[in-house]
Amino acid sequence: MYDHKINFYIMNGSKIGVEVGMGPTRINTILQSAFFNITKIIPESDAIKFMKDAAQKTYGRKGQDVVDKNWAAIDAGADPKNLIRVEIPESWKDAKDEGLDFKKVSGDRKDVIDFVNNIQLKVSSQEGNTLKVSDFLPYVDGSTPSGAAAYEKRGIAVNVPKWDPAACVQCGFCSLVCPHAAIRTVALTEDEAAKAPEGFEVKDLNGVAGYKFSVVVSALDCTGCGSCANVCLANQAAIRKEAKPSTLVMGAIADNEFEQKFFDYAVTLPVKEEVVEKLKETSIRGSQFKQPLLEFSGACAGCGETPYVKLITQLFGDRMYVANATGCTSIWGNSSPSTPYTVNAKGQGPAWDNSLFEDNAEFGMGMSLAQQALRDALKEQVEKIAESGSDDAKAAAKEWIDTFSVGATNGAASDKLVAALAGDSSDAAKYILKNKDFLSKKSQWIFGGDGWAFDIGFGGLDHVLASGRDVNVLVVNTEVYSNTGGQSSKATPTGAVAQFAAGGKEIKQKDLASIAMSYGYVYVAQISMGADMNQTMKAIAEAEAYPGPSLIIAYAPCINHGIKVGMSKVQDEEKLAVEAGYWHLFRFNPSAEKKFSLDSKTPTKGYQEFLDGEVRYQSLRKANPENADKLYEKSAQNAKERYDYLQKLIDLYAN
Amino acid sequence: MYDHKINFYIMNGSKIGVEVGMGPTRINTILQSAFFNITKIIPESDAIKFMKDAAQKTYGRKGQDVVDKNWAAIDAGADPKNLIRVEIPESWKDAKDEGLDFKKVSGDRKDVIDFVNNIQLKVSSQEGNTLKVSDFLPYVDGSTPSGAAAYEKRGIAVNVPKWDPAACVQCGFCSLVCPHAAIRTVALTEDEAAKAPEGFEVKDLNGVAGYKFSVVVSALDCTGCGSCANVCLANQAAIRKEAKPSTLVMGAIADNEFEQKFFDYAVTLPVKEEVVEKLKETSIRGSQFKQPLLEFSGACAGCGETPYVKLITQLFGDRMYVANATGCTSIWGNSSPSTPYTVNAKGQGPAWDNSLFEDNAEFGMGMSLAQQALRDALKEQVEKIAESGSDDAKAAAKEWIDTFSVGATNGAASDKLVAALAGDSSDAAKYILKNKDFLSKKSQWIFGGDGWAFDIGFGGLDHVLASGRDVNVLVVNTEVYSNTGGQSSKATPTGAVAQFAAGGKEIKQKDLASIAMSYGYVYVAQISMGADMNQTMKAIAEAEAYPGPSLIIAYAPCINHGIKVGMSKVQDEEKLAVEAGYWHLFRFNPSAEKKFSLDSKTPTKGYQEFLDGEVRYQSLRKANPENADKLYEKSAQNAKERYDYLQKLIDLYAN
Repeated sequence: MYDHKINFYIMNGSKIGVEVGMGPTRINTILQSAFFNITKIIPESDAIKFMKDAAQKTYGRKGQDVVDKNWAAIDAGADPKNLIRVEIPESWKDAKDEGLDFKKVSGDRKDVIDFVNNIQLKVSSQEGNTLKVSDFLPYVDGSTPSGAAAYEKRGIAVNVPKWDPAACVQCGFCSLVCPHAAIRTVALTEDEAAKAPEGFEVKDLNGVAGYKFSVVVSALDCTGCGSCANVCLANQAAIRKEAKPSTLVMGAIADNEFEQKFFDYAVTLPVKEEVVEKLKETSIRGSQFKQPLLEFSGACAGCGETPYVKLITQLFGDRMYVANATGCTSIWGNSSPSTPYTVNAKGQGPAWDNSLFEDNAEFGMGMSLAQQALRDALKEQVEKIAESGSDDAKAAAKEWIDTFSVGATNGAASDKLVAALAGDSSDAAKYILKNKDFLSKKSQWIFGGDGWAFDIGFGGLDHVLASGRDVNVLVVNTEVYSNTGGQSSKATPTGAVAQFAAGGKEIKQKDLASIAMSYGYVYVAQISMGADMNQTMKAIAEAEAYPGPSLIIAYAPCINHGIKVGMSKVQDEEKLAVEAGYWHLFRFNPSAEKKFSLDSKTPTKGYQEFLDGEVRYQSLRKANPENADKLYEKSAQNAKERYDYLQKLIDLYAN
Repeated sequence: MYDHKINFYIMNGSKIGVEVGMGPTRINTILQSAFFNITKIIPESDAIKFMKDAAQKTYGRKGQDVVDKNWAAIDAGADPKNLIRVEIPESWKDAKDEGLDFKKVSGDRKDVIDFVNNIQLKVSSQEGNTLKVSDFLPYVDGSTPSGAAAYEKRGIAVNVPKWDPAACVQCGFCSLVCPHAAIRTVALTEDEAAKAPEGFEVKDLNGVAGYKFSVVVSALDCTGCGSCANVCLANQAAIRKEAKPSTLVMGAIADNEFEQKFFDYAVTLPVKEEVVEKLKETSIRGSQFKQPLLEFSGACAGCGETPYVKLITQLFGDRMYVANATGCTSIWGNSSPSTPYTVNAKGQGPAWDNSLFEDNAEFGMGMSLAQQALRDALKEQVEKIAESGSDDAKAAAKEWIDTFSVGATNGAASDKLVAALAGDSSDAAKYILKNKDFLSKKSQWIFGGDGWAFDIGFGGLDHVLASGRDVNVLVVNTEVYSNTGGQSSKATPTGAVAQFAAGGKEIKQKDLASIAMSYGYVYVAQISMGADMNQTMKAIAEAEAYPGPSLIIAYAPCINHGIKVGMSKVQDEEKLAVEAGYWHLFRFNPSAEKKFSLDSKTPTKGYQEFLDGEVRYQSLRKANPENADKLYEKSAQNAKERYDYLQKLIDLYAN
């Protein structure tokens, strides 16, 4: 830098972003006009004019206020007042380029440690091109070790949450909704609390005596969305009393980075099974004391998808197989070289893979068939043990056979059986022990977005649901092809502006749930976490327990929606969608006495207000002024008819 | 033959077939044992034993009576009494092989005449290998002329129908149900009747004065299924009176081949538009005076599919585009070199094509998009004429624009417009006249079986139905992959024995109709011709008229079902299926006041009796004796629940 006589400037883009109303993260426009100001590669006035014209053209349909903010950002970026020139010290003259010095990591899991040290650190330091083909030999089967994302501390948040225990009611919502598993509730023994790093705050755990409670934040993994602070029950109580929320407060990362050591300590502690059991694994609070086996993914700040998937990993991650469709879920699900699916202390975690866009349901069905073949072969041998093993082994074999198809209990039965076979030298015992990883009933999941489930992969999804096999399908429905930039899918509702539906979609959203219900033997639910966390939890638990195909369609707000109040309010948006009657909650359980439950109340809030709160709808007035009102009305009419229809299903499916 | 001292035998296989109870067409087993008897290539007793063992193995699951018949056939074939040795005359000693002398054809349509003379005759005479690549130059774009099947007289029937006018009530059912368009009702002027070949019988046409009526049979195209005689109203009246049916009587082809000249004369006569109009095109009788534009296909005798398709060509064939899925419909729809889709006197007929199994709906949608692009471009020019043409042309242009999307009337408006533009030298007129074939609103159809619609092509079908485009889909549902020999599809119902469901299908039939209805803007109907011809007609007419996507699911009995009473009773089977509550008739018309009509009456006849009448179900007792009763019960339960569900839809879709 010194030799080249480079001029070096810095600028506080986040501060300017906040000042012009674009927020702390939208800094690209500001830095671009600063670039033109400094470099003068074209006359500055031309550059400003071209940028403003472009902003008008790009954002015009989103409304004048968006254009105005962009213009203000352009002016501020070009303002020399905002620019600070850094003088290059004389000492740099003799500085040597020694490459980046990434610190090698260490730990118990050799597989991931090797991967991080040999692959991830080089890729992350822009030295990936120096990797040799032979460096990939351990991964020649295409697999990569789980959990590498934990070693990639990005520190991208501007603000991160800081926990104050005083008013905390220990609801667990912060942990539940965090898209990145960067904030967690933790139960500690007195001893663990005593050994914690200085400054680690705790309070008595509500409901289970003898434990302490804390909330820890991985400041360097947090993306700063603020969703946790937004849903915090104690914060909301404060707001209702017109007091300043204090339990979770977003503050500059520089002031809060110390939190990282608390988090790093907390994740070394064992999961408190007693606490989970007493509070119930399927309660919101209880579930949040289980380890999330999806963490620190590359999903957008405030992502509406990851909280659902993370919850599923907390409930079933230790025995999960996942077939993942192409789409956002496959991108944040495995942005090489940082694998966000991880393992628990026993080394158990989701076995995850991504096939193609069009065949993901079939891919998951194949996994399920493979499990069945392996377990049917094991069953033959376990039956031999049940006949001729030791008394202990006979009892264990019988328990395993009795729980063969029950995921919740077959894992423990498998552990007992393995223990009971120690010292048994029969061929059957040898076979079982050799294949013990396949003994327990697994939880087969199939993940994807609406582009997959409603469109490109629908033919296969239909076939797999029709097959009657015990697989669980989660569709995170953003109502648009999110990953490729917002093309209309069959899940896109009437009136939404999207690519291929530039004038607002004319026809209505495909009713995937009704299609699946037509089989009669498929569990089907529509959920929306922010609207009803308990219904979300119930649906996920029921779907997994149902011994046939299950389909959960989860409403997932997305940056493509242009939520005006911002992505920190994704959970609020999920709630508003239901209250306005835009999205409906229900469960269809073929094995229940009362098959169909409509879990949404009669819509109360304004439908149009909901639409006006999102750019994808609000921009319709600009994109298609002649038809906007007609399409808004059609959208409202569709939503109303849909709710009426769902109400009629209560009778239709009554026994 | 003489030089090689070949022994030449003949045997009346059909007669023996009838005697042993297998019918006149099942002669392969008989001839096979005759072959072993004559040739002694293995000891005859071994041959008989092997054949009987094979019959036991193959047909055992179909029941002992089927095995017994096969054994009797084997014994009869091996019986020297049944064998007649033909002495080779001395004169054959000097006979020369001069090849087959196929008579070249002639006629008005040069395209098909050339094709028949240059391609078809050579292929049919086993000389296809001598064709030169250059012989195919006229067909280098992949198209072949319509109507070549009419030049391939196969004469495969053992018995053909003979019409006696005396008791005929002119119902038209014989013509409607004929799978091969080999029997037709015809209206003649007095003059035409007078000029008919000697022996051509007529009676006065009921309902329209001044016309004669006849029924003509193409004995050489008939396959002898007997469906016509079976549905004949006059025959049925006779049977009810315990008299011998006399109106349509099946008799040996040798005694009835003279009928061919009557048929050949009748098809030269123009369609009587006045008769069609007075009797109504959408009445059964009226429709049968229109020309079928599907004739003499290679479909099985008694095929349940072709009557539906043939009827559609009678109603819309002069303005139809067809995208055809792979399956039986694509095989009998174009068994090269005999194209059964044909044209009317104006040269208009279905434009038919077959793409792939998996993309047929999309293929049809592409056709529809192409038509729209062509017609939108034409509309721009017609609008110019409407502004600045002659008074006549202005009026014609206006009429064309007003009927733009109405298939029933836009054709006539197009003809008027073309006539009115004669002499108009404007660019607009020139453009319109140059593209006049694309002027009129076409009827876009998408044909296929259940393997396509329920399974392999379903993803695309769903997408096309969701698109809202004005296409008409006909699914001929045989409930099994018919063309490839009977594999289970998602349309295969519980309890049916099929390949991949050898022990009877466990899960129930997919409800494609409900899936399509879930869109709300798709016309959906289930039909079964033999159960309710008028409902079939109504559904087809409504579907075509509906200005959005339409789906008709037609119940189509098939040789794969093993109908015990035989394929001559396909129409009866279609009726029984509905009466037993096995198949239900309904129409869902989004544009109707009353959207949903349940057209089936509450089932009355025995459900189990229906199942017992078909080998695919009856064989379940052999194939899966432990579960047969359970699956029968499940099947009956599913059917009942389905009817209850449909009854509830009346309320669900009430306005």
